[in-house]
Amino acid sequence: MEISSILVMLAVLIVLAYIGSKLFEKFGMPGLIGEIVIGVIIANLAIGDWSLLGMLDIDIELHNENYDIISLFAELGVIFLLFSIGLKTKVCELMSVGRAAMLVALMGVLIPFVAGFALIQVYDGNMHHALFMGAALVATSVGITAKVIKDMKLLDAKESKIIIGAAVIDDVLGMIVLAIVVAMTQSTDMEVSGIVLITAEALIFVLAIIALCLWVVPKLYAFIDERTKARIKKTGNSKIGIDKLILAIVVCLGMSWFADSIGLAAIIGAFLGGMLLADCTTEWKIDEKVEAITTFFISFFFLHVGMQVVINDLMSLTVLILATIVIVVACLTKYFGCYLGAAIGDKSLDKGSRNIIGFGMIPRGEVGIIVASIGYESGAMSSELYAVVVVMAVATTIIAPPLFAKAFKKKYPPELEITSDCGCTVK
Amino acid sequence: MEISSILVMLAVLIVLAYIGSKLFEKFGMPGLIGEIVIGVIIANLAIGDWSLLGMLDIDIELHNENYDIISLFAELGVIFLLFSIGLKTKVCELMSVGRAAMLVALMGVLIPFVAGFALIQVYDGNMHHALFMGAALVATSVGITAKVIKDMKLLDAKESKIIIGAAVIDDVLGMIVLAIVVAMTQSTDMEVSGIVLITAEALIFVLAIIALCLWVVPKLYAFIDERTKARIKKTGNSKIGIDKLILAIVVCLGMSWFADSIGLAAIIGAFLGGMLLADCTTEWKIDEKVEAITTFFISFFFLHVGMQVVINDLMSLTVLILATIVIVVACLTKYFGCYLGAAIGDKSLDKGSRNIIGFGMIPRGEVGIIVASIGYESGAMSSELYAVVVVMAVATTIIAPPLFAKAFKKKYPPELEITSDCGCTVK
Repeated sequence: MEISSILVMLAVLIVLAYIGSKLFEKFGMPGLIGEIVIGVIIANLAIGDWSLLGMLDIDIELHNENYDIISLFAELGVIFLLFSIGLKTKVCELMSVGRAAMLVALMGVLIPFVAGFALIQVYDGNMHHALFMGAALVATSVGITAKVIKDMKLLDAKESKIIIGAAVIDDVLGMIVLAIVVAMTQSTDMEVSGIVLITAEALIFVLAIIALCLWVVPKLYAFIDERTKARIKKTGNSKIGIDKLILAIVVCLGMSWFADSIGLAAIIGAFLGGMLLADCTTEWKIDEKVEAITTFFISFFFLHVGMQVVINDLMSLTVLILATIVIVVACLTKYFGCYLGAAIGDKSLDKGSRNIIGFGMIPRGEVGIIVASIGYESGAMSSELYAVVVVMAVATTIIAPPLFAKAFKKKYPPELEITSDCGCTVK
Repeated sequence: MEISSILVMLAVLIVLAYIGSKLFEKFGMPGLIGEIVIGVIIANLAIGDWSLLGMLDIDIELHNENYDIISLFAELGVIFLLFSIGLKTKVCELMSVGRAAMLVALMGVLIPFVAGFALIQVYDGNMHHALFMGAALVATSVGITAKVIKDMKLLDAKESKIIIGAAVIDDVLGMIVLAIVVAMTQSTDMEVSGIVLITAEALIFVLAIIALCLWVVPKLYAFIDERTKARIKKTGNSKIGIDKLILAIVVCLGMSWFADSIGLAAIIGAFLGGMLLADCTTEWKIDEKVEAITTFFISFFFLHVGMQVVINDLMSLTVLILATIVIVVACLTKYFGCYLGAAIGDKSLDKGSRNIIGFGMIPRGEVGIIVASIGYESGAMSSELYAVVVVMAVATTIIAPPLFAKAFKKKYPPELEITSDCGCTVK
């Protein structure tokens, strides 16, 4: 491994992503779309001796060493992003929108699954293909929406809480759907008890974290705080910053790993890990530091999303038409499902709010791709459909943010102050 | 590449490094030695099914995928560390100790080289071996010393400036020595003009950065500052933080790459890059953010230093004796060389200051290992001598910090306030 060539690759990619982001912002679009587009360009056009990357000897090819580093940094980026969102989300605030979030997630899972399943049943009549397409349409990748919310500084808006809460529940539901689909499509059929077990694991994990946040963590903090103060008094050494940051990093990585190991998305673990520390964010001054780490990594996440698109795979007319239909279905079903869920779940939400929630849940991002790749690798999905899902995942990720940002701006004009209204005390 | 297993590896390594660091601090030693020791343990003892790492399926072996990630994070860690030191070093402060730094570097290169050369000439009479041993003893790795200085908050002490300045000059001299040694040992003999060229490149680079810092950068900043203020006034958007941090990251990575590509150490480039931005550190508030990124990566640097030691290689008596002698020679010659250099270079430095400088320059770290590996790979050095150099590099890195910290504490008791006295205005 040549460290020097990695250094220049990282620097060049960060610069390119930054340029893409600024260009799109100039035209009033969310900057992250520019970064995704740069990713598409890098993966499809910019590789060759004539290009900037070629001139600097930067060689990025699917699953070569450089690509693996980008993947790792991408994953760390979105993990730290969700962790920093978690750091600013108090559990009580999330609980206060629990009913709405639950219904948004439920409807946002049900309608896309049925539609995806039906569509592929009509298209090629293959049951396995249809099941996996349904499962891929279920996934919601909250990373993209979270970045837009963060950039717009609207984390305290009720709609943001509902979206984030719904994303957590959505991930649990999506995992259950995937487990059932895998069981149904694989010859080694999984017992019902197996599916119940996975489901129970995920539910217990999420509920345990919420319980910890509510009852255990506050006491633990009081204890640590007391000890730290005693130490400072005794030794005069007030070097807290680094220690707390290391604790935060370990919680973030550890929770991501744990969530992943029980079948949930790593980013859900990161978010819950952040929420565990949310009470101390301000006091420990960790949010700015975590944000700095996020800044280092996050561009790679958006670049990586774009790099998944292999334009050559889309060059057949059938695939192109199918992809277009799937993209439309993916957007409409998620939007209406979540819109409906919001309407049923919380009567106080007006049309503007339901719009925000509907648009915010559209991006499938890397989660949809993971589902499709499980199907592809197990042989239950064709390479053609896999390419379609990848394009759908990236397209929904590009389509949603402008709509989402616009709906948000309409509801909350920039001059409006947002206040958290869950009634819990915010330090 | 399994992201999940990488996440748990990173989390576990950070925790282990933290424990090692705290344990050593308990006994009054610099914490980074604890992290190096943990690295030695991981590389030599902790790999196996019975261990924590084995239980978590963390497989770290020389040059496997996990090892490569650790190497990359280690390099990024020390690069960001030196960058953050650079951010706090104004060029005028460095210039004010220029004469002393120059002499410290010169004497600290000359004496170890002659001693290393002579020692191996006596040992096995092989000219090539002797030349490379001399070159390996020349290297100074400022990362370790910089971390101790930073942890002790003594960056503003005159001795710290001299050490850092000397490390930069030392690296240029070391590169020249290495170029000459490589030319002398390789059959494809290099022309004198080639060596002159490399030397000129390195000198022009360092001098150009200093010139930029002195004359160009202040004007550029004034211009950017004006534009930023105009933009904030116009759009009301004061989101500067992230943009400046991205600029800093790109400068850091780009300068490291450039330094590396002209034959200097990447960390020297990072340091000079930091110095380029030193005037704006406070205003842009980038130092805390860069430090957060450093915190994420830096443990891996010290772990990685420790992981270089393969205890099995040292199990022969000859090697053990030779290694001990080389370590003693490495420590004494660097210490006395730099002590002498300081005494000649700046008469105002008392014995305490000369001690600090002498001890601070002892660590060879990764730079010494790089020199030895160039020799080893070109066949000019035996595997036995390579193992000796690795142990020497790690041993000097472990021996120096306690002596250095003690000397510093003696000269500057914790209650003393350090002020910068170079006479330049510090914003």
